Amino acid sequence: MLARLSANEYGYAALQEQWLQCHSDSYSHIEGFVNMSLVVMKFGGTSVADLECIRNVAGRIEEERASGNDLVVAVSAMAGTTNNLVEYASGFARIPDGPEYDTVISAGEQITSGLLALALQQRGIPARSWLAWQIPIETDEAHTKARISNIDSSKLEACLANGQVPVVAGFQGLSPDGRVTTLGRGGSDTSAVALAAALGAVRCDIFTDVEGVYTSDPRIVSQARKLEKITYEEMLEMASLGAKVLQTRSVELAMNQSVRLQVRSSFKSLPGTMVVNEDEILEKQVVSGIAYSRDEAKITLVDVRDRPGVAAAIFGPLAKANVNVDMIVQSTAANGKSTDITFTVAKNDFERALEVINSSGEKLKFGDLLTDQTLVKISVIGVGMRSHAGVAKKMFETLAEKGINVHVISTSEIKISVLIAEEYTELALRALHTAYDLEAG
Amino acid sequence: MLARLSANEYGYAALQEQWLQCHSDSYSHIEGFVNMSLVVMKFGGTSVADLECIRNVAGRIEEERASGNDLVVAVSAMAGTTNNLVEYASGFARIPDGPEYDTVISAGEQITSGLLALALQQRGIPARSWLAWQIPIETDEAHTKARISNIDSSKLEACLANGQVPVVAGFQGLSPDGRVTTLGRGGSDTSAVALAAALGAVRCDIFTDVEGVYTSDPRIVSQARKLEKITYEEMLEMASLGAKVLQTRSVELAMNQSVRLQVRSSFKSLPGTMVVNEDEILEKQVVSGIAYSRDEAKITLVDVRDRPGVAAAIFGPLAKANVNVDMIVQSTAANGKSTDITFTVAKNDFERALEVINSSGEKLKFGDLLTDQTLVKISVIGVGMRSHAGVAKKMFETLAEKGINVHVISTSEIKISVLIAEEYTELALRALHTAYDLEAG
Repeated sequence: MLARLSANEYGYAALQEQWLQCHSDSYSHIEGFVNMSLVVMKFGGTSVADLECIRNVAGRIEEERASGNDLVVAVSAMAGTTNNLVEYASGFARIPDGPEYDTVISAGEQITSGLLALALQQRGIPARSWLAWQIPIETDEAHTKARISNIDSSKLEACLANGQVPVVAGFQGLSPDGRVTTLGRGGSDTSAVALAAALGAVRCDIFTDVEGVYTSDPRIVSQARKLEKITYEEMLEMASLGAKVLQTRSVELAMNQSVRLQVRSSFKSLPGTMVVNEDEILEKQVVSGIAYSRDEAKITLVDVRDRPGVAAAIFGPLAKANVNVDMIVQSTAANGKSTDITFTVAKNDFERALEVINSSGEKLKFGDLLTDQTLVKISVIGVGMRSHAGVAKKMFETLAEKGINVHVISTSEIKISVLIAEEYTELALRALHTAYDLEAG
Repeated sequence: MLARLSANEYGYAALQEQWLQCHSDSYSHIEGFVNMSLVVMKFGGTSVADLECIRNVAGRIEEERASGNDLVVAVSAMAGTTNNLVEYASGFARIPDGPEYDTVISAGEQITSGLLALALQQRGIPARSWLAWQIPIETDEAHTKARISNIDSSKLEACLANGQVPVVAGFQGLSPDGRVTTLGRGGSDTSAVALAAALGAVRCDIFTDVEGVYTSDPRIVSQARKLEKITYEEMLEMASLGAKVLQTRSVELAMNQSVRLQVRSSFKSLPGTMVVNEDEILEKQVVSGIAYSRDEAKITLVDVRDRPGVAAAIFGPLAKANVNVDMIVQSTAANGKSTDITFTVAKNDFERALEVINSSGEKLKFGDLLTDQTLVKISVIGVGMRSHAGVAKKMFETLAEKGINVHVISTSEIKISVLIAEEYTELALRALHTAYDLEAG
């Protein structure tokens, strides 16, 4: 458990300090460590889609409780609710005011937390809902994609000590100036992991409508296989590449805080996929999965004056405007005087990115601006890649064999991503799944 | 304006004190009194039913703002939202846990406040939403029908000073232990009046789907006429008797705090009905209106042992369980040893009332318990009644002429109510409206 306290890339210092204070008297008898029996259970939108589903979730919680564990539950909004609210809030302005937008779209989780508390009470299980501001779950001010800065666990601990099951509204946070924030699409996962870290939970179970993490999207690749275990690093790439099982940030946080994550089905009582440290996986696959993301918008600045600081002039303001840039490619013209710069952003950041670029004025001169939103990103992922050559070669060969043109390439230690025309998505996924022999396991 | 500060039946001492502190420097130049330009505008559910309606409301606010007034806006949930949430929350328990119930059903106002702030911003009007806990609007712990105990106006005043329009989520409150409370059906009216009192507003406009207060329900009595003015006392009786224009408590509060109320249409730019002190109405009608309420459940305890304290044994526990009892009739048997006690409660308190009665055990002995939920209460209301005899006589004669049997009668200084079979509702209303010559004005 001590390893969990070392990593701190995400400003969890306060949280850790608090954790230490709360549990400093437990180190001498680590065996009886009270939180070894605490599990955080998170239920997503499809798991709480209607009253019947919420009743089932209450049943799942009752089962888990019968095994003797203390439980903290985190919930998303009922499926469809947040989308409706987003539609409402987007009805008034192309880029709505962050605080008001968050005030509107966070209401769904409030509703679910109250309903699930009622459903638990109906089964005779003492329970109460917790909204982010009541705990509080403090965040920064980056509305619509806020980061958790601190969780005060004292009230939840009192609630647990009182024999109650706390049902926390996920997705929500409280900004330094007392406004409602939200943690971005899928943010309830992050709420759950942050709660698990703050409370020192032995495990964080993410209940969802799939049975675990697969080698590829089973709706497209029929031979996709459920993985028993996957490393944080691989899951991180999967998540950030569009395998929408977990929010990226929740995986980062789990990794940094060594929270053991399990992705499992809310409808079937089966073990899911454990997300763990690399050293817990004995036989490593070279490639663990093939992911894809349709959420890619490509922007090319043509004929940019090539001088020192030009990249900063583009990407500095984008970062300031909270636009995450993913792939970046720069190609210099033969004369060496100008260059084309291509980069990708998430589709919902696209308009904001254009506004930032177009308002950069004198600092940034370019000839033309090209955009493309009809591309898909395909990625081959595996920690084994580090020690195996030839993974990239096989990817390019496989795509070439199928006549698929590659627009942009980017790589990391454990991943190779390419941007291709979206019409080739299914073909590429199936061909790569076969090429890397993922059916076999 | 000073008169407003004298009445204090509802625990508004803190509120008043604060008001005095805030405005103590204004008394020497009452002409330039800053809050004389402050108007509270409240928009109900049908006024904010969809995005188009919310856009219209933003337009109404822009108009009012153009006249130079400072504005504070209070909003209800979009029509239907709260009913849906109530249905959800009631899906788990016959009598759900108050705090959780309130957590669920208060979400609608949060959504509207954010959306209206966005709609105002879209028109270039600086605006921000305020949830009850952010202000805070403090209440007692009587969940589902909480009473406001204090409003801290400092943040709203800062917001106004900043040139913004505060859009307050109505209906909501914050309990002493930090839970979300709600103020009961129609509670946004009370939020609006309490805000008007706390901020010293010159007027509180309640925008709704009717053009004002009518002599009777125009959907039933086609000749019903809009009143230009009505007294607080009459409005109070109207409200409590089912003319669902205003929540009863909001009228009580307006009366006690001398908040000038106006009921007006959110769809037409017309003057509505002013709710004012009696001395502002020169020509008083004997009868101002005929109201009705279908929300009546009658409970009769037959053969109650007639001894001292029996009424307390019935109505004490009911009051403790937050059940409001309306009409009470006691009729003693010829032998003088036992009695029948009949009383009415609101239909949504009916089951709780029965539980309370049935669990009273040894303290309360009775032979039988009869109930009837098929009755309607018809009331004739008017402050002129105080100085005019014969109003009751005319009522009973008119009903008798139509062959309508009266079950229970109750009277106050300015009102006579009867319980009749609900099938006679329309007949009774029209006959009484004509009998008191209300068509003429």
